[in-house]
Amino acid sequence: MVDRYSTGLKNLEKIHPEASKALMENLKDIAPDLGRFVVEFPYGDVYERPGLDLKSREIATIAALTAIGDTKPELKDHIKGALNVGCNRQEVIEVIIQMAVYAGFPRAINGINIAKEVFNEIDGKK
Amino acid sequence: MVDRYSTGLKNLEKIHPEASKALMENLKDIAPDLGRFVVEFPYGDVYERPGLDLKSREIATIAALTAIGDTKPELKDHIKGALNVGCNRQEVIEVIIQMAVYAGFPRAINGINIAKEVFNEIDGKK
Amino acid sequence: MVDRYSTGLKNLEKIHPEASKALMENLKDIAPDLGRFVVEFPYGDVYERPGLDLKSREIATIAALTAIGDTKPELKDHIKGALNVGCNRQEVIEVIIQMAVYAGFPRAINGINIAKEVFNEIDGKK
Amino acid sequence: MVDRYSTGLKNLEKIHPEASKALMENLKDIAPDLGRFVVEFPYGDVYERPGLDLKSREIATIAALTAIGDTKPELKDHIKGALNVGCNRQEVIEVIIQMAVYAGFPRAINGINIAKEVFNEIDGKK
Amino acid sequence: MVDRYSTGLKNLEKIHPEASKALMENLKDIAPDLGRFVVEFPYGDVYERPGLDLKSREIATIAALTAIGDTKPELKDHIKGALNVGCNRQEVIEVIIQMAVYAGFPRAINGINIAKEVFNEIDGKK
Amino acid sequence: MVDRYSTGLKNLEKIHPEASKALMENLKDIAPDLGRFVVEFPYGDVYERPGLDLKSREIATIAALTAIGDTKPELKDHIKGALNVGCNRQEVIEVIIQMAVYAGFPRAINGINIAKEVFNEIDGKK
Repeated sequence: MVDRYSTGLKNLEKIHPEASKALMENLKDIAPDLGRFVVEFPYGDVYERPGLDLKSREIATIAALTAIGDTKPELKDHIKGALNVGCNRQEVIEVIIQMAVYAGFPRAINGINIAKEVFNEIDGKK
Repeated sequence: MVDRYSTGLKNLEKIHPEASKALMENLKDIAPDLGRFVVEFPYGDVYERPGLDLKSREIATIAALTAIGDTKPELKDHIKGALNVGCNRQEVIEVIIQMAVYAGFPRAINGINIAKEVFNEIDGKK
Repeated sequence: MVDRYSTGLKNLEKIHPEASKALMENLKDIAPDLGRFVVEFPYGDVYERPGLDLKSREIATIAALTAIGDTKPELKDHIKGALNVGCNRQEVIEVIIQMAVYAGFPRAINGINIAKEVFNEIDGKK
Repeated sequence: MVDRYSTGLKNLEKIHPEASKALMENLKDIAPDLGRFVVEFPYGDVYERPGLDLKSREIATIAALTAIGDTKPELKDHIKGALNVGCNRQEVIEVIIQMAVYAGFPRAINGINIAKEVFNEIDGKK
Repeated sequence: MVDRYSTGLKNLEKIHPEASKALMENLKDIAPDLGRFVVEFPYGDVYERPGLDLKSREIATIAALTAIGDTKPELKDHIKGALNVGCNRQEVIEVIIQMAVYAGFPRAINGINIAKEVFNEIDGKK
Repeated sequence: MVDRYSTGLKNLEKIHPEASKALMENLKDIAPDLGRFVVEFPYGDVYERPGLDLKSREIATIAALTAIGDTKPELKDHIKGALNVGCNRQEVIEVIIQMAVYAGFPRAINGINIAKEVFNEIDGKK
């Protein structure tokens, strides 16, 4: 049997190493098992699957999080994750702009503002 | 000034030629301008943009439509569209399965059932 | 104390008389109190309030139901209701088209298809 | 290491035995791993947890599915599941009515219609 | 005829006494009738109904608010309310974790962070 | 061919002049084309259409934004916009209260709090 937790940690480290630590730290007192589930199911089971490359997986996730709304912390993490697995900034922006078509302009504008925040953090701007 | 309608039609023909005709036919008596807007804005403006390839755009759209829910006709069209621009069936399935993580299992199961319907239509099965 | 149920019935009769009867009939065996709540709260309390005319209230409701999704029976009733309190068909269509901006094109296209169904029923077409 | 699949199957059998078989059958050709994930994560990991009894878990699920919308197959299964683990019909109805407060009347009315369909199936009525 | 307002206030006092006062205070200048409706319909009509105990009602509400998203003030109030009517902290946490299955991980993680905030407030921690 | 950008700017100036400038400023470095799309499609194409007056369009938009959730910046802008094109404060409040019926009380209460913030800004109160 595969050790899903180790597999998940390995994928999390590849995609968003800082986010991974922050999430675990945040959940450890109140719901450590939810932290474990995040490692095991999304990252140990789903992102490990063949059939779709990690870059495409991050594009799908950014699209969904933008469209769903009220997902700012996760969208920030996955924008960083997308950049870590090979997306460039323009690709991230294009996915978010495209959501204006499917989820309406407020979601797209909100998503772009979140991307701006992430890019500014990376560039050391406040 | 670019002729957005012609650009949009060209992109629609490339992505989902049948869906394009059916949508126009369907809207022509009640809201022909909504049909025109679909051609001009999503397909004439957004899908025409450089910076993200069509295959990635369809992955983003399938992710969003699966996550949003109550979008069956559009999801069917975009699954066909994804296949038309270079996705294989496994990639479509992977995007939808991944939505279990971000939008919950009911959306993912619903999406897989819609994909099954599309694949069966293509294969001439009921 | 105001008799909210009678007030609600009076407003329901004005806005969508057939829908009112169908809803009550439908709920009477399984959850008659939900039917009563529909009469009392939305129609006895809210639609009775001064400060916004019934036509504007129906415009607000059509906008919200289109945007929310998975509300077909209610959207059908309120399209009929809007026509009953003074909206014309073009106004109904415009509200729904506008939702492409705020909730995305799939919701708007879905709403237009529902409006088409209602108009065809009224015109005696299948 | 715990065998999550066996644990999940055991819980699925307890909660909704027919639904379990139908879901697996439905997914087996197109996305068997999604079927496996349903067994392992929701039923093997989550429903197995101590700290909340199965009846309360089904109440939570019915509330969420009613509120989310476009979840009819899952809501039908979980209404049956709730009855299988000790809820009575009135409790199911009360949870759904309560959703009028948090997710609006259209979701509650839709949920009640789905409950009616389930109760009629159980009672052998069409 | 029952005095719904008094009934509602009584239930609100039982479930979340502080939240009740804060909500009324907040709405009194701009929309006092919305405050009155909150007392009368959810608390005077719905929570007063027999057929489902208050603890189960709060479990249903926490599930729905977590799944819906963008409901932080209400979720905070109902987590306190759940504790006031007999849920323990673990039960609250379990309901929220379970929402990962039905509404996706971002909603569950967001809900857990809100629960953490509530528990810290109760414990006098910042 | 109509110059959609100029038409859009003209409508934006009429509806919410300050919001228009702030949005463009905000998007100009990261996604200027999204800013252009906002001018051209919603304001150049949709709000320019005959068949529904601007006041009714703003009522529809406030209803939808309140119902959708997680749209605070847009809802603030459109509350100001509604006042600019002829709605009075009571009409804005009524539309938002009505959303309790269709999208649940949390969305309505959240919307009223946002309206309060807008009215206080206009009145020079903090």
